[in-house]
Formats: sequence, structure tokens, C-alpha cells
Amino acid sequence: MPADIQRLSLLRDRIHRELYDSVLPFWLRHAPDRQWGGTFNCLDRDGRVWDTTKHMWLQGRLVWMLSKLYNTTAPDPEVLDVARLGAEFLHKKARRADNRVYFSLTREGLPKSLQRKMYSECFYAMAMAEYARAIADERLRFEARHMFEACVAYSKDPSLVGRHVYPHLPPVEALAPPMILLNMIEEIHDPGETTYDMIAVECVERIMLHVRSDLQVVLEHVAPDGSLVDSPEGRILNPGHAIECAWFLIEWGRRKNDKEAIRAALRMIDWSFDRGWDTEFGGLYYFLDLEGHSPPALEWNMKLWWPHCEAMVAFLMAFRETGDERYWDRFEQVTDWTFEHFSDPEFGEWFGYLDRRGERTHSYKGASYKGCFHVPRALYLCDNILGEMLKG
Amino acid sequence: MPADIQRLSLLRDRIHRELYDSVLPFWLRHAPDRQWGGTFNCLDRDGRVWDTTKHMWLQGRLVWMLSKLYNTTAPDPEVLDVARLGAEFLHKKARRADNRVYFSLTREGLPKSLQRKMYSECFYAMAMAEYARAIADERLRFEARHMFEACVAYSKDPSLVGRHVYPHLPPVEALAPPMILLNMIEEIHDPGETTYDMIAVECVERIMLHVRSDLQVVLEHVAPDGSLVDSPEGRILNPGHAIECAWFLIEWGRRKNDKEAIRAALRMIDWSFDRGWDTEFGGLYYFLDLEGHSPPALEWNMKLWWPHCEAMVAFLMAFRETGDERYWDRFEQVTDWTFEHFSDPEFGEWFGYLDRRGERTHSYKGASYKGCFHVPRALYLCDNILGEMLKG
Repeated sequence: MPADIQRLSLLRDRIHRELYDSVLPFWLRHAPDRQWGGTFNCLDRDGRVWDTTKHMWLQGRLVWMLSKLYNTTAPDPEVLDVARLGAEFLHKKARRADNRVYFSLTREGLPKSLQRKMYSECFYAMAMAEYARAIADERLRFEARHMFEACVAYSKDPSLVGRHVYPHLPPVEALAPPMILLNMIEEIHDPGETTYDMIAVECVERIMLHVRSDLQVVLEHVAPDGSLVDSPEGRILNPGHAIECAWFLIEWGRRKNDKEAIRAALRMIDWSFDRGWDTEFGGLYYFLDLEGHSPPALEWNMKLWWPHCEAMVAFLMAFRETGDERYWDRFEQVTDWTFEHFSDPEFGEWFGYLDRRGERTHSYKGASYKGCFHVPRALYLCDNILGEMLKG
Repeated sequence: MPADIQRLSLLRDRIHRELYDSVLPFWLRHAPDRQWGGTFNCLDRDGRVWDTTKHMWLQGRLVWMLSKLYNTTAPDPEVLDVARLGAEFLHKKARRADNRVYFSLTREGLPKSLQRKMYSECFYAMAMAEYARAIADERLRFEARHMFEACVAYSKDPSLVGRHVYPHLPPVEALAPPMILLNMIEEIHDPGETTYDMIAVECVERIMLHVRSDLQVVLEHVAPDGSLVDSPEGRILNPGHAIECAWFLIEWGRRKNDKEAIRAALRMIDWSFDRGWDTEFGGLYYFLDLEGHSPPALEWNMKLWWPHCEAMVAFLMAFRETGDERYWDRFEQVTDWTFEHFSDPEFGEWFGYLDRRGERTHSYKGASYKGCFHVPRALYLCDNILGEMLKG
């Protein structure tokens, strides 16, 4: 328990109100497309639709998030109703017979684009798993698992999602696939179920290849033996991504009593925050280069909402695991900075994009990669953990 | 002629020295790969290679630029030698039997990626056309033309470069294809030759669809009848791109005595500069939205080197066409800001990427989309035009 229970209680109230009075109402009010079904994700500051394109990463994530809330803390018919709109659109319009899911569709549900990546499929599976619980639908539960298994295959052979693999290029392992699969397993498995434990153990092993104690970093891309790839790709650090991965590991570690996974996660959080936090202007950088070169991404020094969401969750979980006040202080530091810079008390939800100085560059609340997901997920998890702490 | 001939002469000297004492030596010294052939384009501030990947947009552009210099103002064997390194790598390693050109290859020349776009092919054709002149090679001259004709086909049917075309989506015309084809024709045609005039006229017509006098903007994407596409894509403005397109039109207009094309170009320059110039911090924005929404690109408010290069060329050409001192003043204004913010007197060449405030975000001189092209091309064109003006 942190020294100041008063402060804990105030923070919990702030987070609780932000989720249930600002963020959730924003999406329930503005996302539904009652005319064509599905949900809009490109929403302007005040919730107006600035693009009717529907992006399936975000529709899947919204369905997962609303179903999760409905199944736990917000058993409200309106929440389930919007989840249903999204789930039915995903099921009828976005999923193809070949187990691929479109990246984006028109408002009416006609395909616009298909990525050579597996993430539309991942979020489809997570959405259906949680929504199936909400409506107690065994067929959908099975479909989610079927899609999950397709994703496992996609993660091992990118040619299955249409990516050309040049056999002469040295193989490179990315952090994202095992990380997202591990999180999917946490979401898809039923209480006590061990069906996917073998796959999860393999994911944890694949993640650990990226965790380099000698360099005190989490590398986004490594060789299959964990050694450094000598290229800009091999030097990329994504502090928010590594911090998100860390709390996925903590969840796994708590469930399976894997103390080593939790210890690794704590190191990942420490290293990534120490390197990633901008001591001049505050906030987490989006990308860094291991050796201090300019990261190729033009937006590398921008402050995006989601790494800050992940850091809130990770520091609070780290505090819960260790009782170390240092983690509590970091949790407060990140939460204060994040609310101050991203929250929008006027219209609800959060802004997504700031420049290095923390000045807003984009006014919208939703876009092709921002939807009803990181903000409510972080608030939901933190609210629950703080609530448990207060109960003692 | 501008009022102040002294100022004109000083500016010309500055531009001339920048090209021949700073920019050209930088690439001649650091780009060649004497071991594996070809040229590096990912060069750090001081010229060191930070990534050995070779990007073919830039290798084609370097070969074009060096061949152009060799054929005109710098008939130096070293210039031809580096052009040859690039041309042979392009010819032997990058070009495929099916008239596609890889986007990137390893240092050794093994394929890394192929875009679903036609621009590697466009810059290949431009490179070979100019290099063929340098070495008086009829076979290469033919090959350049053959590739140009493939590009014309690609521009009409993107499925030829592997892009999936959904027949149910309303067709959208992009500014880039007719614009680049028009510039290719200017580069590929021999003096007095009219072989490609019909295609050029069609390109000019396609470009004009994007020039909206009613809105005083150049739209990046329009419907085939020139009407507004009601989506973020339809609202995108790219001031530097429109300004570059304008000077392509001026070149065409001068050659064919097409006064209407020149008048349109002057409007494009005026509108794009008036909207695109940041009156608070200076410099041209990368992207804008017609209606003032946040442009989806995260880097929309950054200041990139190339729009400023294009603006230097365009304002000087506009002044040459009209004698209007207003254009001369703009040319001076843009040139001063550009030199001050991008030029690197210490190591040569220019930086590429600044934040909105004009502060450098990336230290490198070359990357996957920056090479030996926009800077030397702008300096070369401005140096020549100013030189002609001084001759009077």
C-alpha cells in the first residue's frame, strides 16, 4: 500500500470518473452507425465523424472492450448493444472465408484494404471471444478460437498473410507477434483452462529473446538466437511497446506463478522508462535508436497517448507485485502527465498526438489507429487494481 | 531582372558554391560502394553509412542527377564514374525481367522489397535516359524508353504493380502519376522530339483536374471528373508537391509555348505558398487539410527539405516567366529560410527533417526517401537560371 491512502483514493476516483463519465460515454454516443451497422472510429474532437471508413483493428478492439465492460463492471444493455453492432459488422462484412479480416471497409461494409499483417485477425479473435461470453454463444466462442489458431500460423509464416518472404535475407524476429499472441491467450482462455499454455510458454520464450540484460533494453527486432541485428531495424526501441509487453508478462506470471517472467517484466519497465522518458519536456518518446542515431520514423519524438496508457498500467501492476514505492511514484508521475496532456474534459475521451513539447498536433479522438481501446483499457485495469488495493 | 543585381549575383554565388563545393562533393565522396557496386543513400550527418540498404528510388535519382551534371556543367570523369556505379547496379541487380524494379536491395544486391507503386521504375527510366546520353549508349536509351512506356501502363492500371483494385470503390485520381510522367517526358525526350507529346498533353489534362480555381487549391486526389472526393484523402493538400508540379508545368509550357499551362502553374504556386507557409515559424507544412481538419499523417506539420527545394525552383521560374518582383521576393525569402535551416556547412549536404518550429529532428543526410536528388536538382536549376539572368 502506498503511504498516502488519501492520494490513492483520489487517484482512483479520478480514473473511475474518467472511464465511466467521459471515455465510455464518448464512444457509446458517437461510435454507433445505426444506419449501416458497425461503428465509426474516425471521430473528431467533439465526436463528429470525420471519415466514415471503418477500421477493423479498432472495431475488433471496441467490441472486445465493450464486451469486457459489460461482462464485468458495466452490465448495461446499451454497452452490449453497441458491442453487438460492431460484432455483427465484423462477422458479416469484415471476415473473409479464407480466415482473413479486412483492415478497412466503407461505411456500407465494402472492402477497402487488406493488410499484409495479422492484426485485424488478432483483434477479431479477441472481440469474438469476449463478445461470445457476453451473449453466451458457443459457436462464436469456437470461431474466436479458430481465428486465434489461424493467427498462430500467420505469426510463424508471414507468407500466409501475403507477405513476400525473401529466402536469402537473414530471418528477423519481431516482438509484436509473440506479445500479441500472449495477450490473446490471456483474453481467450476460460478460467482454469490450460489449452493454450504450451503456446503461451513459447510466446514467453520468444519475447525473452528481445530482453537484453547486457544492454538494458528491449529490442523490437532480433535474430532468431536473440543476437543483435546490425541495422536500423535491429536498433529500434519502442518504449511504450516494451512496457505494454511487460504487463502482458506480469499477467501471465501471476496466473501461472512464473516469477521469472515477472522479474523480467520489471526490468523491461525500468529500462524502457529510463530511456524513453523525455526529461526535458516530459512524456515517452515513440521510438528511439539503441545507439542514438536518428530513428527513421519521422514521428519518433512525438508523444502518443497509448505508450502513456501502457505505462500507467505497467507501473501500477509493478507496484502491486513489489510494493516498491518507487513504482507508485512513477505511476503517479505518468498518470498526472498523461491526464494533463491527453484528457479532454470538454468533449470527453483523450487526444492522441502531441509533439515533443507536449503540444497537440491532432485534434481528433479517433483515427485509423486510435479507437475505443488503449484509453478505456488502461483506465479499466487501473480502476480495478486501485479498487482492490483500497479494499485491502 | 530584379532591382538589385548585386543581390542576384550574391545569391547565385551562394547557390553555385553550395552545389559544387558542398552538396556534390558529399555524394561523390560518401555514396560509392566500391566493394559491391552501386551507391549508398543512408548516410549520416558526416557521410558515414548508417544503413547499407540501397533504395532504388534514390539510386535512380542519383544516376539521373550525376549524369545530368556530367552532361552539362560538370563533365568530370569522377562524376560519370559514380553515375556508372549506380547505373550498373540498377541494371544488373534492381531491374527484374518483368519490367519491375525493386524498391530496396541489400548492400550485395539481393532483393529486400518491392513496392506496389511504380516510382522505382520511373526513376530507373529517368536514370537510364540521362546516363545513356552520358555514355552515348543507344541500347540503354531504348531501355529507358521501354521502361517509360511500362510506367505509362502502370499509371493507368495499378493492378500491374500488384495493387488490389476493388471495383466497387469509386475511382480516385492522384496527382502524382501524371505529374511524374510529365517530368519523365521532359527528361527522356531528345531536343525537338515530339514522340511523347500526346502523352504529355494527356498528363497536363490529368493534372488540371486537380487545380481548383473555385477553391484556390491543388487537390492531391480527385474524382475522374475533377470533383471533390468527400473523404480525408480527397481533402489532402501537399503544398510542396503542388509547387513541384507547377514548375514541371512551366517547363512544359515553355517548350510547347503553352501559355495556359504556365498561367495555371503560377496560380498553383501562389495558392500553395499562401496556404502552406507557416507564418508563425516559417517554412512549408508537409500536409494540410482542405477544411482545416487534422491531416491524418503524424508528420503533417513538419518542415521537410524537399518542399523548400521545389519552392526555390518554382519562384525563380515564376519570376523568369513574369518579371514580377513579388516572385523574386518570395524566391529570396524561401532561399534564405531554406539555407538557414537545412544547409550544413560543417559536413556538406542538407539536413532533411525539422519540426514545426524549425528545430532539427533527424541528423542524417540520406535515408530511404532522401538522397542525391532534390537538393542538387534545385541548386542546379537555380544556378543555371540565375546565371542566364546575369548574362542578361
